[in-house]
Amino acid sequence: MRDLASSLRWLSLNTATVREQWDLRAAIEGCVQHGIPGIAPWRDQVQALGAEEAGRLIRDAGLTVTGYCRGGLFTAPDDAGRRAAIDDNLRAVDEAAAIGAQCLIVLGGGLPAGSKDLAGARAQVRDGIAAILPHARAAGVALAIEPLHPMYATERCCINTLAEANDLCDALAPDDPILGVAVDVYHVHWDPKLAAEIARAGPRILAFHVCDWLAPTKHMLLDRGMMGDGLIDIPHIRGLVERTGYAGPIEVEIFSQDWWKREPDEVLRTIVERYRTVV
Amino acid sequence: MRDLASSLRWLSLNTATVREQWDLRAAIEGCVQHGIPGIAPWRDQVQALGAEEAGRLIRDAGLTVTGYCRGGLFTAPDDAGRRAAIDDNLRAVDEAAAIGAQCLIVLGGGLPAGSKDLAGARAQVRDGIAAILPHARAAGVALAIEPLHPMYATERCCINTLAEANDLCDALAPDDPILGVAVDVYHVHWDPKLAAEIARAGPRILAFHVCDWLAPTKHMLLDRGMMGDGLIDIPHIRGLVERTGYAGPIEVEIFSQDWWKREPDEVLRTIVERYRTVV
Repeated sequence: MRDLASSLRWLSLNTATVREQWDLRAAIEGCVQHGIPGIAPWRDQVQALGAEEAGRLIRDAGLTVTGYCRGGLFTAPDDAGRRAAIDDNLRAVDEAAAIGAQCLIVLGGGLPAGSKDLAGARAQVRDGIAAILPHARAAGVALAIEPLHPMYATERCCINTLAEANDLCDALAPDDPILGVAVDVYHVHWDPKLAAEIARAGPRILAFHVCDWLAPTKHMLLDRGMMGDGLIDIPHIRGLVERTGYAGPIEVEIFSQDWWKREPDEVLRTIVERYRTVV
Repeated sequence: MRDLASSLRWLSLNTATVREQWDLRAAIEGCVQHGIPGIAPWRDQVQALGAEEAGRLIRDAGLTVTGYCRGGLFTAPDDAGRRAAIDDNLRAVDEAAAIGAQCLIVLGGGLPAGSKDLAGARAQVRDGIAAILPHARAAGVALAIEPLHPMYATERCCINTLAEANDLCDALAPDDPILGVAVDVYHVHWDPKLAAEIARAGPRILAFHVCDWLAPTKHMLLDRGMMGDGLIDIPHIRGLVERTGYAGPIEVEIFSQDWWKREPDEVLRTIVERYRTVV
């Protein structure tokens, strides 16, 4: 495994971690000040500045864009809705290219309104990814399918295991680096097939996200923990990922009503310390 | 699929559904009054009356005991703790026999205190089930391994997919009806492998539990929904289960701070109505 203690070179900040305190400009400055070389911004922040300007600011700061959050969310109750989602993803690919993102994070989407058909929703996701692949290829923007925890299956993302993400890659773009997966310890740590599916993913792993699972978890969306404060064996999962040859960024993404109340420099100092000691 | 609308013969009440309103004696009377022929009591309630007396009351009321909640919870930080858990399970088997339960529900247990090793916890569960199997066989009490939703993996139950439960059956007691699985729609509805694993379970299915997944879910433990109020396609899952030949009880188990505040006869009336119309 890589030696994280002596270097921050693989560390990246997902800007959602400090989204209540800092806009993108402030987050870029924060990364520079704390020696964090990577950043993963969200679409609303990039669109607020314009993708060209956002890309210029990030490049001028010397930061790497480790991922762009987020595309996908393809499910909709009718053709017009699905078409609109695809169009929006085409724009997201263009924005990702403009800011130089290493990948666009792609989520599934939940059940369409009025539906309880998870298999149908999953088919819509497959079709949506297939529809944007040619444009992603032309733009040179890799798509990283991120399975979300099964507790989000119905409302947010119906791709819930790394096995499903790997299956989608096999079905849509086998052996093509334009399509891969994002592994977030929060979403996959529980999976009894995790070691096998990480090994299967291999070079498809485009992103690795860390945070922690708090016990108890008080809110299903907004109570993620800082690394080390919860029950996920992060070094174990990192070891599985790195044994595939992964040498890319380690991105910190924490949605937390608790950490959003803290002073943002304290958040980044804590991230740096925990990255060196418990990731 | 069976015709539920015209008969309540397969309906069972898990007493947790009205645990804040009724003790076991009252729940037995409630089942009789509402025409619910099955009941699944919890250990604290049975122990409060004594297993012999509880069994007598249930038999005198003409009810079937569709399951006994609950055994398992084998994980512990040391040998003494694991031994105590096994001893407690041996007593649970005896109680299940005394009340004539069709099966003892077996949960995994969460991470032992101080551990983040889910694979180790899962091995402890396997060893725990293996340790009580001979006594279960001697007592004629079938053990139903119930996978819980992955959001409970770390704190409550590290067996989180029907595939794992099936694997445990294969490993510990292949082709032996003493060991099987319980399928609860709340815990498994999200699983992309669900149809295949239900088919694989086949005659191992000892129990089928229903409730619903609310959107949003406000509490990870105590906000289950009444059937029809959420996003689970219950008839679809029931169809998968019945296509294996399952002809056993359909047990309603709802942990809900909302329904616990309602008048218990209203709860049972609603269960009967929803059982006839949306299960």
